[in-house]
Amino acid sequence: MPGNSFGHSFRITTFGESHGPAVGVVVDGCPPGIPLAEEDIQRELDRRRPGQSLITSARHETDVAEILSGVFEGVTTGCPIAILVRNEDARSRDYAAIKELFRPGHADFTYLAKYGVRDYRGGGRASARETVGRVAAGAIAKKILGYEGVSVIGYTCQVGDVKMPAMERVTLEQVEANPVRCPDPETAAAMEKLIMQVRSERDSIGSAVEIVARGVPAGLGEPVFDKLKADLAKALMSVPAVVGFEYGSGFASVTRRGTQHNDPIIRRQTGSGGAPVIGTRTNNAGGILGGISTGEPIVVRVAIKPTASIPQPLETVDTQGNPQTITTKGRHDPCLAPRFVPIGEAMVALVLADHLLRQRSIRGTE
Amino acid sequence: MPGNSFGHSFRITTFGESHGPAVGVVVDGCPPGIPLAEEDIQRELDRRRPGQSLITSARHETDVAEILSGVFEGVTTGCPIAILVRNEDARSRDYAAIKELFRPGHADFTYLAKYGVRDYRGGGRASARETVGRVAAGAIAKKILGYEGVSVIGYTCQVGDVKMPAMERVTLEQVEANPVRCPDPETAAAMEKLIMQVRSERDSIGSAVEIVARGVPAGLGEPVFDKLKADLAKALMSVPAVVGFEYGSGFASVTRRGTQHNDPIIRRQTGSGGAPVIGTRTNNAGGILGGISTGEPIVVRVAIKPTASIPQPLETVDTQGNPQTITTKGRHDPCLAPRFVPIGEAMVALVLADHLLRQRSIRGTE
Amino acid sequence: MPGNSFGHSFRITTFGESHGPAVGVVVDGCPPGIPLAEEDIQRELDRRRPGQSLITSARHETDVAEILSGVFEGVTTGCPIAILVRNEDARSRDYAAIKELFRPGHADFTYLAKYGVRDYRGGGRASARETVGRVAAGAIAKKILGYEGVSVIGYTCQVGDVKMPAMERVTLEQVEANPVRCPDPETAAAMEKLIMQVRSERDSIGSAVEIVARGVPAGLGEPVFDKLKADLAKALMSVPAVVGFEYGSGFASVTRRGTQHNDPIIRRQTGSGGAPVIGTRTNNAGGILGGISTGEPIVVRVAIKPTASIPQPLETVDTQGNPQTITTKGRHDPCLAPRFVPIGEAMVALVLADHLLRQRSIRGTE
Amino acid sequence: MPGNSFGHSFRITTFGESHGPAVGVVVDGCPPGIPLAEEDIQRELDRRRPGQSLITSARHETDVAEILSGVFEGVTTGCPIAILVRNEDARSRDYAAIKELFRPGHADFTYLAKYGVRDYRGGGRASARETVGRVAAGAIAKKILGYEGVSVIGYTCQVGDVKMPAMERVTLEQVEANPVRCPDPETAAAMEKLIMQVRSERDSIGSAVEIVARGVPAGLGEPVFDKLKADLAKALMSVPAVVGFEYGSGFASVTRRGTQHNDPIIRRQTGSGGAPVIGTRTNNAGGILGGISTGEPIVVRVAIKPTASIPQPLETVDTQGNPQTITTKGRHDPCLAPRFVPIGEAMVALVLADHLLRQRSIRGTE
Repeated sequence: MPGNSFGHSFRITTFGESHGPAVGVVVDGCPPGIPLAEEDIQRELDRRRPGQSLITSARHETDVAEILSGVFEGVTTGCPIAILVRNEDARSRDYAAIKELFRPGHADFTYLAKYGVRDYRGGGRASARETVGRVAAGAIAKKILGYEGVSVIGYTCQVGDVKMPAMERVTLEQVEANPVRCPDPETAAAMEKLIMQVRSERDSIGSAVEIVARGVPAGLGEPVFDKLKADLAKALMSVPAVVGFEYGSGFASVTRRGTQHNDPIIRRQTGSGGAPVIGTRTNNAGGILGGISTGEPIVVRVAIKPTASIPQPLETVDTQGNPQTITTKGRHDPCLAPRFVPIGEAMVALVLADHLLRQRSIRGTE
Repeated sequence: MPGNSFGHSFRITTFGESHGPAVGVVVDGCPPGIPLAEEDIQRELDRRRPGQSLITSARHETDVAEILSGVFEGVTTGCPIAILVRNEDARSRDYAAIKELFRPGHADFTYLAKYGVRDYRGGGRASARETVGRVAAGAIAKKILGYEGVSVIGYTCQVGDVKMPAMERVTLEQVEANPVRCPDPETAAAMEKLIMQVRSERDSIGSAVEIVARGVPAGLGEPVFDKLKADLAKALMSVPAVVGFEYGSGFASVTRRGTQHNDPIIRRQTGSGGAPVIGTRTNNAGGILGGISTGEPIVVRVAIKPTASIPQPLETVDTQGNPQTITTKGRHDPCLAPRFVPIGEAMVALVLADHLLRQRSIRGTE
Repeated sequence: MPGNSFGHSFRITTFGESHGPAVGVVVDGCPPGIPLAEEDIQRELDRRRPGQSLITSARHETDVAEILSGVFEGVTTGCPIAILVRNEDARSRDYAAIKELFRPGHADFTYLAKYGVRDYRGGGRASARETVGRVAAGAIAKKILGYEGVSVIGYTCQVGDVKMPAMERVTLEQVEANPVRCPDPETAAAMEKLIMQVRSERDSIGSAVEIVARGVPAGLGEPVFDKLKADLAKALMSVPAVVGFEYGSGFASVTRRGTQHNDPIIRRQTGSGGAPVIGTRTNNAGGILGGISTGEPIVVRVAIKPTASIPQPLETVDTQGNPQTITTKGRHDPCLAPRFVPIGEAMVALVLADHLLRQRSIRGTE
Repeated sequence: MPGNSFGHSFRITTFGESHGPAVGVVVDGCPPGIPLAEEDIQRELDRRRPGQSLITSARHETDVAEILSGVFEGVTTGCPIAILVRNEDARSRDYAAIKELFRPGHADFTYLAKYGVRDYRGGGRASARETVGRVAAGAIAKKILGYEGVSVIGYTCQVGDVKMPAMERVTLEQVEANPVRCPDPETAAAMEKLIMQVRSERDSIGSAVEIVARGVPAGLGEPVFDKLKADLAKALMSVPAVVGFEYGSGFASVTRRGTQHNDPIIRRQTGSGGAPVIGTRTNNAGGILGGISTGEPIVVRVAIKPTASIPQPLETVDTQGNPQTITTKGRHDPCLAPRFVPIGEAMVALVLADHLLRQRSIRGTE
């Protein structure tokens, strides 16, 4: 089983390399009857696109999405939705020089070890450009979730040592108000300053992104391997440069006592009808108990490594194993969090849409 | 697609509840011709078993594994290996009192939200007892890996604030030398002391486990969703009580620069034959680049929340939504890391065995 | 991906060999809240069991089903249902003589070619005994279908040249009224006579079984690869000895004209509510159009080869390739259709239950 | 799990509707290092294309294949191969008239029953045009098989009552020598005459196609559900208009005795090396025993119903359930076998390539 598909009831398959003719995705399992236009997808692609600001890569891609199938008279038909994005600004000459070299922090030598051949142009399939298909599919997932009252929002919560304070409820407007995608304006300014400084030093910096899903009904997530926390972890860890995942209290739980960590269970007054709506007073569990959603906000965080491509000489070897020095000349973001935000949101939305449909099989007729 | 199976080429399906007749696993895809006996499985089950020491639960389960199929004349046949473990010490009376109550930190109300019914006896399917099947299957995975020169070893690296110092190469003997499964004797003593103290305070404590796989050949892991890091994250996050995952530098990468984080690529002198064996001087990447193994040790860490079941009154509601107080009376470990160690090793071994077989499809005839 | 699982939303995994400790099945994805007892399963197993009459094998297996998990207080919980059947009358001595020989018409040398080892006792995993797990799982599928008003009934429609006449609506009582499981008493008598004669000649005879599912709602089946006709074909062709599959007019369509074959579309008067219920006047399509159920009865037929094991000397070679003669001494049915009937019903029920649950994901909330 | 993907280790996902912007396929799991050019794919697409002769549809599609990914410097990289074919001659006006009508023999009302919406233009996703992606993927599968010495060839073996005589070894040249794709020239002439007559009567006729795979190594096919016979049945039954499947003696086995049907096992003199190469003297088993390939030619046959679209008034209802008459005006083949031949070959090749790669996981390192 090759690894280019994700999800079960809502399932995507991505294709395409950084410098080939195109990248894209086939979305299978989208419910019929959902209004869908290319603009719905374009909006999210534009958030992911390089060249948005000084702190992101200067590579220019207009990234125009074309829907090839699965939509008729403006609504989804239940058939596979194929979305195509042509590659435009693929300067292969930037990469010819590194054909025989392995870039540190990149997948160059592992792809060669795996396949015996590799597309050396800009990382080929290992390039973050592959995520175009994920973001396009995520836009559809968000539409499905929207009908169920579920929202997914991500933001940069840390760059180097600059951390965002706790915020009650973050809005898309707050996130999109600045190029680092941190909803707190002061922190955003400090992050931006740090990123510009790191760039001037020809270096890069690590970062963290938090993603919150609200309105998720209780009961999503499949025991025992496809727990919501497990599928969210896989989804987010499958994105290039992500090196850690946690939800709720996460790694902070290591130093905590059970008396501090257990969330008291309460009856929520916000419920409709006679049946009690159960919730928790605190949310150390990050909206997930036993791998299944509680109805409380789902809160996840990922750690993102500093960009591997930096314009400095690095120690490496060539394909014959001879020691060499390599200096990446491509155009790269010094910090990955800002452009990761829409990708991370997409991955969370894909997991939730999939589990929403899976849950329908279980209790669909009640 | 229900969620009780894991893996593709090497695929397991677990079944069973905490207080039902039995738990078990069906292992499908095990290569033929591998010597396998019940003792191979028993050895690992005995490490997972409760009642091993004062710091673990007093529940007594002999946990005897019976191989029902897939092994003939002492070797695997390539057919499914079903392994059965009968439940013995299932004191259902302990749990009858909580039939109408939701335990904080447990899956009680999320299972009810998901299925509309629940097996309230000891967590039912959500109980950590489900991991018996995983550990049994992991024992087989370890045998497959052993033939390829791959070892997997885990250990408790942190309990509360007590952290283990860095160690070069940990042995199974060091790990099994003490009940907390920390290879450093001094740290182990401090951890044990802390756990005993927490228990005396009728509380529980969080912890962390590190797992290292050595000898993994370069090239394992499938782009793009089934990256090794993604599948390892899913595997470990699917275990009850695990709330965070990282590999290599993990969350520490957030505050790092690219110049610090990139591992220089080198030619390893340990290679055989004429072809260069590539490696990295440092291992911030935790043995994985682009989601594919580098040949360096794979290093992962998980955060484990403090045990939810603690013998103190906790705030909750009953199934009608009325406020109630609940005091768990069952027998539970105050710290989960020690018994998690064999479970975590099993999950890592399952992922690696699966990817080893998957890689054979790709380059099997070369 | 090994091949011991079947289905997606309703998914089964079977295990076990003819002469090992046990055979069984894990059923994953069964909806919660369905009353289920061991008798529900036993009833179907008893229909499959050898030794029912003079025309079936004399092997005595009581085939007692034990439910190991997934059922609590008499109803399904949504968790995997593991069912175990111990092997009792496994006379391994019957088979030791053929350890070094390949039986014609059996999987002996293909298993060896595949795995390099084989369990030579009674066919091992290739034995029809593996279908015990399928029949047990099929009993659960039938219960799910029953709640939706779907019935599945199979019967022997041909043995050698003895063919059953067309019958309007066959009942289980008619089928079970005689040992050949042919609902027409006269045909049944002729079939039985033929089978007894074939047995007296130390030979075996081919046969055909027809299976009809009534009450299947329109809309089941997934374009384009998981069409209902494709999944039914796979399900039935996966049973040992089945060598052909057709639905509706099937192979008779080859000599027909379009004007004869197209079923006129009509409005059925049996519909409730204002919306028209569409049907077809004839049912050459066998209840399936475009791979999706029409609401008309689903009608499939399979061809079953004559039993391979016959008590006559057959030409073969041994494992060293030397010419040999082999005479099967085991106890075998001279005609396979009668005992295939419950197996075929089970396979059809498994496919329909799976597609019923899959359809819920598509239109679950309407 | 939606149904637009097929295969496990070699896995395809098709997309596209008859009258949408494009049809295509993503091929995942193709081994790296295989030379592949667009001409390899084009050659097969040209065989499937309409408008090839008087006996096929007059619809003109140049069907130009574009490879979007997965091939670099002329060889496959191991990454997904996306292939795009734009729709050109999509005369939607032909179909607007039937927007409110259900065509007999078509999926119109079943798609509506399934999804609640439908793309009424030319069958949409249910159109045989979807098979473009299968044929494109099959071209790649054939290349993989070619390296292993496996050939796959299909031909029209029956049209109405006109049957082809048995032939020893059919060549591609013989098949492509006439528009009906029957390798026997005399039969081909008779078939062509019958088809022209049927067309002149504004009718259509049923047909049968036989497909033979030679050089398949013994050992392919997975017990127990993914038997080679089961996967071949599913693959071929998933093609529109296929209503029956058999292999080897197939339905003729129903009237046979075991003494006639069992193939004597022999040592083949054609083997290399010291180990005996096992074969069978006859091939009633169609190259498959226990669901696993024997090394003998794999022989399968399918029944194809007469084309549903015929230029005559047919009885139907509209979407409100009112009785109506419909006369299909589109351009359609009066007999489907000739153009089915490359589709059937593709499906067989896809199954064999998948099982070839799956078998590598099992015995990849021996």
